[in-house]
Amino acid sequence: MTVETRRRQIEDVASALFHENGYAATSIRDIARALDLQGASLYSHVSGKEDVLSAIVDRAAGRFEASLAEAEARADVDGSSAADRLAAIVRAHARLVAAEPELASVFVTEWRHLTGERRAAILARRDAYEARVRAVIADGMAAGQLAMTDVAVAAAFVLSAVNGIATWYSPAGRLSPDDLAERYADLTLRALTEDHR
Amino acid sequence: MTVETRRRQIEDVASALFHENGYAATSIRDIARALDLQGASLYSHVSGKEDVLSAIVDRAAGRFEASLAEAEARADVDGSSAADRLAAIVRAHARLVAAEPELASVFVTEWRHLTGERRAAILARRDAYEARVRAVIADGMAAGQLAMTDVAVAAAFVLSAVNGIATWYSPAGRLSPDDLAERYADLTLRALTEDHR
Repeated sequence: MTVETRRRQIEDVASALFHENGYAATSIRDIARALDLQGASLYSHVSGKEDVLSAIVDRAAGRFEASLAEAEARADVDGSSAADRLAAIVRAHARLVAAEPELASVFVTEWRHLTGERRAAILARRDAYEARVRAVIADGMAAGQLAMTDVAVAAAFVLSAVNGIATWYSPAGRLSPDDLAERYADLTLRALTEDHR
Repeated sequence: MTVETRRRQIEDVASALFHENGYAATSIRDIARALDLQGASLYSHVSGKEDVLSAIVDRAAGRFEASLAEAEARADVDGSSAADRLAAIVRAHARLVAAEPELASVFVTEWRHLTGERRAAILARRDAYEARVRAVIADGMAAGQLAMTDVAVAAAFVLSAVNGIATWYSPAGRLSPDDLAERYADLTLRALTEDHR
């Protein structure tokens, strides 16, 4: 097994344990045990628990950023409206949370356990992600496609709703990640579209 | 100090520590230290950490249930429509999460650390709460006030959005809990109202 494969394996196992029991309740010894390793042997690959978390958080953030960029790039090619672009972003985000709840719980919750520069770096990436969502909502409002609303509140409302999928969704249930993503995109567009009641 | 006052004080301190650092990362010793007590002295009031969590979760669940019941009772007096009733429920829930984020994080997240019968009991109460929200959405659909939609998905979408307030809202910011609650109720009604695009 290459060093890289081993390192990735450590991250996958740690990610599952963090998701199931939380970062604070998971020890380096728990991670070693799940890999059938001695703690000392694990330390030849990683310098500590926060080091593993940081690698996992980086990877999770990268996946969400790539998914967002892809949704936006596809919308650009289609010449879509801001409303379509928002739907595409929500669809991609919801699909990723439903398909990979561990990734989502790391990006949404467990990053809080990082400290110092690592924490500052992930906060900046999370803020940049949310800023993209706000910008699309603001574009849609400016173009008259979305109702005038409090952009920051609307973005928080939508992102919380979509991130919540990680807390209840089961792929064994009646909805596929794609079905769910479609419904979430619909609810979002309605919530932000001009009110005709 | 009466036994009851002391017990309540322990729960308040524990609640703040669970909210800040998570249940798993908080020890009985941390709780005792924050109260300037010896661990042994704390054990004369509580039988263990899960005992404290269970009391806090019960109280938080009771607050959310009372808030829901009050919103529904007020809507009954007003003879409101199902849509108005849904708005009242979301407004009350959002206001409570914004005003008491510790209470919310216990009811939304930390209950997961309970085990056995205590866990089963809180799960049943959470399910009953969500069932009320679903019932109001279903009533609104039956009355033609809300768009035909997937009731379970819509309830999960709305509750996740509202619960998310605990993760970002600051009472020091530009929005009061009432302002925020009003905006969340508007976004919810729009999301679930017939689509005229």
